[in-house]
Amino acid sequence: MPQQIRAQETRAAIIRGAAAAFEQRGYGSTSLAQVSAAAGVTKGALYFHFDSKEALAVAIIDAQHTESVSAGRELLDNNVPGLRALVSITYELARQLRDDLIVSAGVRLTIEAVNFSTPVSASYLDWIAACEEFVRRGIADGDVVPTVDVRAAARFVTAAFTGVQVVSDVLTRRGDIDQRLTEMWTLLLPGLVAPERWDDLKDLPERVQRERVAARP
Amino acid sequence: MPQQIRAQETRAAIIRGAAAAFEQRGYGSTSLAQVSAAAGVTKGALYFHFDSKEALAVAIIDAQHTESVSAGRELLDNNVPGLRALVSITYELARQLRDDLIVSAGVRLTIEAVNFSTPVSASYLDWIAACEEFVRRGIADGDVVPTVDVRAAARFVTAAFTGVQVVSDVLTRRGDIDQRLTEMWTLLLPGLVAPERWDDLKDLPERVQRERVAARP
Repeated sequence: MPQQIRAQETRAAIIRGAAAAFEQRGYGSTSLAQVSAAAGVTKGALYFHFDSKEALAVAIIDAQHTESVSAGRELLDNNVPGLRALVSITYELARQLRDDLIVSAGVRLTIEAVNFSTPVSASYLDWIAACEEFVRRGIADGDVVPTVDVRAAARFVTAAFTGVQVVSDVLTRRGDIDQRLTEMWTLLLPGLVAPERWDDLKDLPERVQRERVAARP
Repeated sequence: MPQQIRAQETRAAIIRGAAAAFEQRGYGSTSLAQVSAAAGVTKGALYFHFDSKEALAVAIIDAQHTESVSAGRELLDNNVPGLRALVSITYELARQLRDDLIVSAGVRLTIEAVNFSTPVSASYLDWIAACEEFVRRGIADGDVVPTVDVRAAARFVTAAFTGVQVVSDVLTRRGDIDQRLTEMWTLLLPGLVAPERWDDLKDLPERVQRERVAARP
């Protein structure tokens, strides 16, 4: 038993070390020797847990995905109104990208993984499915206009968030991501909100951004 | 003179070879030996023109940027209405991404270049500036609502396009990019179009997509 726990701790340390090394140098330019140094484990221990660099990258993507999806799950389970949940989750993912090395490494690897032999489309497909659920709930709440193409909206919100974080990363190392998300939602809401709910919802993005800043520990 | 022309041809062949090698294996995983093999030049010739792998990547990004920006320039010079030009340029960039190896390699490198010592933000900043010009022209044309935040709209269109092409690349190797762009514009237009122009412009994305397919050689 203790041995099994030790093995799990080593595996977690390797994933953290690899995330740090990949974030610093980029995936392709990082050697497994650099990963074992960053993780503080021997190369033997590294190979015991992961048989290739790609296996390590996939483990980081999985860890990131689990963490990000659980934030979405929480909003769904807590009966937050659909449109508010859809807006909120983008600020929460932005926070994870800024504060959590596993998340930022995982998201970057997902984008760089086009050349992987393991398909990484599950991350996007799961997010598109979660966004569909938020949009559908938003329609049921009366906040989202019922004529909206739910699948198209879910796909575009996922893609738009991806682009906002990529551009924010290149231009400001994600320093401006909250402000850029508020701009994104300000431009997107007119195509989503039911006309009779417009007056109540038009400043939802600013409200969510302000509440999140106020709630910071 | 012929020697200078030969040198330019060698340089162009190296850029093409490097683009192909980077697209196939990813930037970080490609060695300079693989680049010289793909380009059909000696390692000596490669080092004569580029003193590092990063210098090669920056040359590809520059070549892609020149090609993409000239498409935007053409729309601006031909007095195409601003909103139509803004919509059109996204489909034209999508075409370049599908058909032109230098463009797809350059765009991918721009995203992966966060760890470069050379800043690559110029690509995004130039596109944001071009989009600003399109949006401002759209306001002058009466197509875009004058209360829109021009800078925010330009930034978001640039980011949204980036995300749409990244997600389309991961999910379908860009096979669905035109359809995803039409969905993006369908969701974005209500936040951009002046109410009195809505009836004329609401199907602009489908019209542009159809015209481009019809015009294909």
